[in-house]
Amino acid sequence: MKMKIAVIGAGALGLYYGALLQRAGQDVRFLLRRDYQNISRQGLKVTSPKGDFHLAQVKGSREVAELGEVDLVLVGLKTIANDRLIELVAPLMKEDTAVLTLQNGLGNEERLADAFGASRVLGGIAFLCSNRGEPGTVHHLGEGRIRLGEFSQGLSERADAIAAMFREAGVPCEAVADLRRARWEKLVWNIPFNGLCALTGKDVTELLGHGPSRAEIIAIMQEVIAAANRQDLSLPIKPEPFISKMISATETMHHYRPSMMIDRLEERPLELEAIYGIPLQRAAEKGAEMVRVGMLYALLNLGEKP
Amino acid sequence: MKMKIAVIGAGALGLYYGALLQRAGQDVRFLLRRDYQNISRQGLKVTSPKGDFHLAQVKGSREVAELGEVDLVLVGLKTIANDRLIELVAPLMKEDTAVLTLQNGLGNEERLADAFGASRVLGGIAFLCSNRGEPGTVHHLGEGRIRLGEFSQGLSERADAIAAMFREAGVPCEAVADLRRARWEKLVWNIPFNGLCALTGKDVTELLGHGPSRAEIIAIMQEVIAAANRQDLSLPIKPEPFISKMISATETMHHYRPSMMIDRLEERPLELEAIYGIPLQRAAEKGAEMVRVGMLYALLNLGEKP
Repeated sequence: MKMKIAVIGAGALGLYYGALLQRAGQDVRFLLRRDYQNISRQGLKVTSPKGDFHLAQVKGSREVAELGEVDLVLVGLKTIANDRLIELVAPLMKEDTAVLTLQNGLGNEERLADAFGASRVLGGIAFLCSNRGEPGTVHHLGEGRIRLGEFSQGLSERADAIAAMFREAGVPCEAVADLRRARWEKLVWNIPFNGLCALTGKDVTELLGHGPSRAEIIAIMQEVIAAANRQDLSLPIKPEPFISKMISATETMHHYRPSMMIDRLEERPLELEAIYGIPLQRAAEKGAEMVRVGMLYALLNLGEKP
Repeated sequence: MKMKIAVIGAGALGLYYGALLQRAGQDVRFLLRRDYQNISRQGLKVTSPKGDFHLAQVKGSREVAELGEVDLVLVGLKTIANDRLIELVAPLMKEDTAVLTLQNGLGNEERLADAFGASRVLGGIAFLCSNRGEPGTVHHLGEGRIRLGEFSQGLSERADAIAAMFREAGVPCEAVADLRRARWEKLVWNIPFNGLCALTGKDVTELLGHGPSRAEIIAIMQEVIAAANRQDLSLPIKPEPFISKMISATETMHHYRPSMMIDRLEERPLELEAIYGIPLQRAAEKGAEMVRVGMLYALLNLGEKP
């Protein structure tokens, strides 16, 4: 199946998945900003432990309108730019266009659904370590798996087809029946590690190697799971073995620095609403108080530039 | 009443109070370390908004044994040096010597009581902004009030006499019947402000000026008061108006940086056990869980050098 795909938010994530899909034969168009000149002239280079590659010709524009209508919009925009999300996606939409947001945290599908209708929207959780290198280059460091699902229903042919397309492009991908559960599962990792690394300047290995902060990570995970299990999930998340597995997996990430930590070190704004603000709100709506998460959110917020 | 007084831990606090007592006619001896040469030769200078002064002759030694036995030992040692507390105080003790610890947090009186008997021990809470300047100089920035009391009983003639001695030296001082309550009251301020300033690098004015961190400060104060009120105090601490008063008082401290923040900025060890570890333990013993305080303790601990 060949699809016309637009990538909105061509950061490390958007460029990486877009490049893989193009290499696999999909018709991909990128909305570009700072890399426009370089990518237009020299194409896009991907370095990866799975093998480097170079796309000599890449379709890109600085104007969404020039990308034309597509079958699928892939959203990789930072959530801090979400006030522009709808205007960036709208020109790409024809009647049956689907939108798959791979953004972090909660609230992104809702935003798209409000504008375009819930039935158009899918969400995905990307487990990807990547960053941007010199202009026109993206570095894939490891992982890359995606779990995606429909926003307003369970399994669907469309979700299966998109997952198959990613797999054909070399991306491990599964369609899930309960997107909300998958989002909360990811938050169980993101909420403690992103925030604590950004706040303290320590990486995941340092946090786990220190008894008291390791205990806080586990306590935060318990708070998130308790809140998640009030969100009408199809199946509750069992704190054990879920937490132990997640800790073990993180122990293999040698001195990994989550993106939020790097954003803080480089004095960029953090994705606080998607990863903290909205989850705290959803928890509170269902009567779950996440005390540690609230404190973490407040202290991260304090460090943001006004 | 003229007393022989030894000052152990001649940092900004010990030097300041010792200097005032000497100026008022008391026989004061200082245990000195890095300032020994300077103070022996040139005396001790105090700068203060209440008037600068200089003591040309100061009795000091690098060896406790040379200070001789005294009537009163004033302890100003950092609690991180408490493993040396008993050996430093022991040579000064004659049969009726009293020990007044002005150290931060909890656990100091107990340590002295175990070694010398509870009846010898008093504790005091100092509200003092001071720091050390060039060698031989201490800067008094503001405040200075002391609340002191007996460790093992209520009001006493001895506590009244010591309080009177401080007042004669120009230090506002009151004897309190419930030292434990006074210590916990001070913790209601120290626990949020010392730790949050040290952890985030923001001063008290910045913390209070930011809605979410201001709310966390209040929530932490509530946790501490709830734990305090399980410690068999003579009278419970009423969250209101206590918290509001404390916040208002702090709002007058224009961009004040608590000592723990300065210690962290200068990469010195923090007084974590006295201000966090032992209070958390006392709270847990009485079934009070201080969740935010525990998280703060863990994260401060993480930032300490191994």
